Amino acid sequence: MIKWQRKDLVGLEDLSKEEIELILSTAESFKEVSARAIKKVPALRGKTVVNLFYEPSTRTRVSFEVAAKRLSADVINISTETSSVKKGETLIDTGKNIQALNADIIVIRHNSSGAAAMLARNVDISVVNAGDGWHEHPTQALLDIFTLKEKLGRIKGLNVSIVGDIAHSRVARSNIWGLTKLGAKVTVCAPKVLIPPGIEEMGVVVTDNIDEALKKADAVNILRMQFERDEGTAFPEQLEYFKAFGVTRERLQKAKKDIVVMHPGPLNRGVEISSEVADGTNSVILEQVTNGIAVRMAVLFLVAQGRDKK
Amino acid sequence: MIKWQRKDLVGLEDLSKEEIELILSTAESFKEVSARAIKKVPALRGKTVVNLFYEPSTRTRVSFEVAAKRLSADVINISTETSSVKKGETLIDTGKNIQALNADIIVIRHNSSGAAAMLARNVDISVVNAGDGWHEHPTQALLDIFTLKEKLGRIKGLNVSIVGDIAHSRVARSNIWGLTKLGAKVTVCAPKVLIPPGIEEMGVVVTDNIDEALKKADAVNILRMQFERDEGTAFPEQLEYFKAFGVTRERLQKAKKDIVVMHPGPLNRGVEISSEVADGTNSVILEQVTNGIAVRMAVLFLVAQGRDKK
Amino acid sequence: MIKWQRKDLVGLEDLSKEEIELILSTAESFKEVSARAIKKVPALRGKTVVNLFYEPSTRTRVSFEVAAKRLSADVINISTETSSVKKGETLIDTGKNIQALNADIIVIRHNSSGAAAMLARNVDISVVNAGDGWHEHPTQALLDIFTLKEKLGRIKGLNVSIVGDIAHSRVARSNIWGLTKLGAKVTVCAPKVLIPPGIEEMGVVVTDNIDEALKKADAVNILRMQFERDEGTAFPEQLEYFKAFGVTRERLQKAKKDIVVMHPGPLNRGVEISSEVADGTNSVILEQVTNGIAVRMAVLFLVAQGRDKK
Repeated sequence: MIKWQRKDLVGLEDLSKEEIELILSTAESFKEVSARAIKKVPALRGKTVVNLFYEPSTRTRVSFEVAAKRLSADVINISTETSSVKKGETLIDTGKNIQALNADIIVIRHNSSGAAAMLARNVDISVVNAGDGWHEHPTQALLDIFTLKEKLGRIKGLNVSIVGDIAHSRVARSNIWGLTKLGAKVTVCAPKVLIPPGIEEMGVVVTDNIDEALKKADAVNILRMQFERDEGTAFPEQLEYFKAFGVTRERLQKAKKDIVVMHPGPLNRGVEISSEVADGTNSVILEQVTNGIAVRMAVLFLVAQGRDKK
Repeated sequence: MIKWQRKDLVGLEDLSKEEIELILSTAESFKEVSARAIKKVPALRGKTVVNLFYEPSTRTRVSFEVAAKRLSADVINISTETSSVKKGETLIDTGKNIQALNADIIVIRHNSSGAAAMLARNVDISVVNAGDGWHEHPTQALLDIFTLKEKLGRIKGLNVSIVGDIAHSRVARSNIWGLTKLGAKVTVCAPKVLIPPGIEEMGVVVTDNIDEALKKADAVNILRMQFERDEGTAFPEQLEYFKAFGVTRERLQKAKKDIVVMHPGPLNRGVEISSEVADGTNSVILEQVTNGIAVRMAVLFLVAQGRDKK
Repeated sequence: MIKWQRKDLVGLEDLSKEEIELILSTAESFKEVSARAIKKVPALRGKTVVNLFYEPSTRTRVSFEVAAKRLSADVINISTETSSVKKGETLIDTGKNIQALNADIIVIRHNSSGAAAMLARNVDISVVNAGDGWHEHPTQALLDIFTLKEKLGRIKGLNVSIVGDIAHSRVARSNIWGLTKLGAKVTVCAPKVLIPPGIEEMGVVVTDNIDEALKKADAVNILRMQFERDEGTAFPEQLEYFKAFGVTRERLQKAKKDIVVMHPGPLNRGVEISSEVADGTNSVILEQVTNGIAVRMAVLFLVAQGRDKK
């Protein structure tokens, strides 16, 4: 097996099939740590991990924080609300300051695509992308793929459908990169306005018919629909979306019997997914959360090692 | 002595006298940890405690955080402001997600009565109620009772008066449950509008006369008056309350000489309590804060054990 | 060498030359900890450090948090936004409550001058001033002085110019106290309206001519200009300031060749400093950040010891 050489994890587009597989197998070996009575290994003892979040995201922050602490790292949380970003410091200056603290890893969530890559180029310490704009969210895709492989034994040859707002989804993009590199066939499904032009060039099949997307799928990854912004007017829009694209028991009955149902959370019950499906036997949604810890432990561990090799 | 069997602490209403006594004696043995040079025991090493606060409460959050850290647990703080609750996730989904992280204990503060119980029913991990609506705040009552017992040697047969907004106080309700189970006689004292109808059925005496409430009392627990909401108009209301119900040196002079004065904090000096009384020799207000750590260490320790027994 | 006797660090005005030197030499011995693979010493294991921040300051909070964690302390963060301060508790009550938790050190940032001193007088535990109003910010000055000494081998006899809003700068005041006690000659430079009347009594030379201030300087400490409050109108004001007082390559060419350029951060590039200077070979701005950890480790360590001696 290859050795990990990178100091950063910016996106799955950059990684080879072998690198993705190395992360997955490392995550496998870390998974049992969280099942122990004492959920802790000394792998990153005396290391400092900084969660630098320019967008609020409790789920992702908490998952990285738990992962880092189970590796015995010290964790520092910085969120925009209280950050000197307010005072107009540039991202690069913030990054260099964090490096000057002798921190080891920056986990960054940012609303601009490319922010993680820019930060990674400008600091010597490790950078892990926890979501940058509409670009990538690599650890989410890795935990999706980890869960899928755990359930179905392989990725190669699987039919995976991704349903939802493909145009604005970093989760979709990272999944497409990861799944296609590992040999899965990916279908994306959304209302036409939420399909980004040229998406076919990423090697995916496009449809705006949910039944079509589910028919041959071994797994469906259902994206969260972000209707929050227009809170006043969202309700009819949500109902309409549910009618046209919501994954329901009725629709699943026409799919493969053991289709794997995934969702990155948090759920909009009754919008993109029905409660029956979310809580049903095909759903692996909570296993995804569990696997998120293992995958993030693996990523933090590997990038820390990758940096030491420089 | 009995063994602790519960995975949760939702309220004192549910507990037997023996269970309350077990928490108190466990707290006693943990109290000396915070007096050591190295204030740490490995009891919860490798466990994850999540503080899930839907209402801001620095005091309670900090007390649980310190308690958990002195037990060597990893602590994750989640507050509404940054939580995915904003994104509309239900409390049960949030709880199941936290469980999926392989966390061990959720400490929940919530503005709805019954939230902690509902969460406890829906997850397999431990839930500790850090205050739910007007319902219960069991660890506050336990630390009040612990302090009282430490000062007076017993609870049985004591006369304890609780003064303040009884109708909207989870602290009052938890104290009433705990104190009456342990054999104290409880009097509640408030303006008539702040006495909930039917409160006598909890086995307490009711009065709207503060001198009456203080006369035979071995201890008085003075609740914080929440005038914040009407900030513009509160001042005359506060003065009026102080005149009618404020616990002052003059009023205490007519009470038992060694009456124990308690307050859950934070203090409104000159509203429900005078500064002389708050800082006087009868006051155990800061000892309550100290004992809060011991009581919360005991609760976290016991529920973690209770869960292992399942 | 003398022994440290104080439980607090409130300001450099209070300290003797020998005490300042003791902090600097202690910081020197802690500096290598952050260069180790495992950046951790057990000096404050089982101690509780509370960061009590009434003003947002990610940089300072993070620096203290990292310092405390590298000493193995437990760290609790409290910020105004979520604190019971909102509920009207006084600073002294808050301090006594933190002491009642058996915390060991309070690191306080407050917008009122004198807040740290008042808190220190009213609690028995250690208090470290992380900035109080326009009064002092002693650890910032200590890390500036530490960096200067590291670069130039001494403080005595150095010419140090401080440029910027002297009138409203706790950083300037603490630097003046520290530098003059150690025998440096300090010049302050600002537009006349930003020079506080009577500043000469602190033993400094005053000028409103930036070239004059730079001419003989061994080091220049450039203060951040706080234009944020008038965001709408700031831009022309900023350009004007940059023209008259901004430290640029052109201006530095008339100064000593190896002049040391310092800035407490965060930088306003193009306002008080040009990017060329900030990122140039004379700049030690990021080394200041690195040294901040060592200095704060030293301060936390010494005050904890000082308290034990009481």
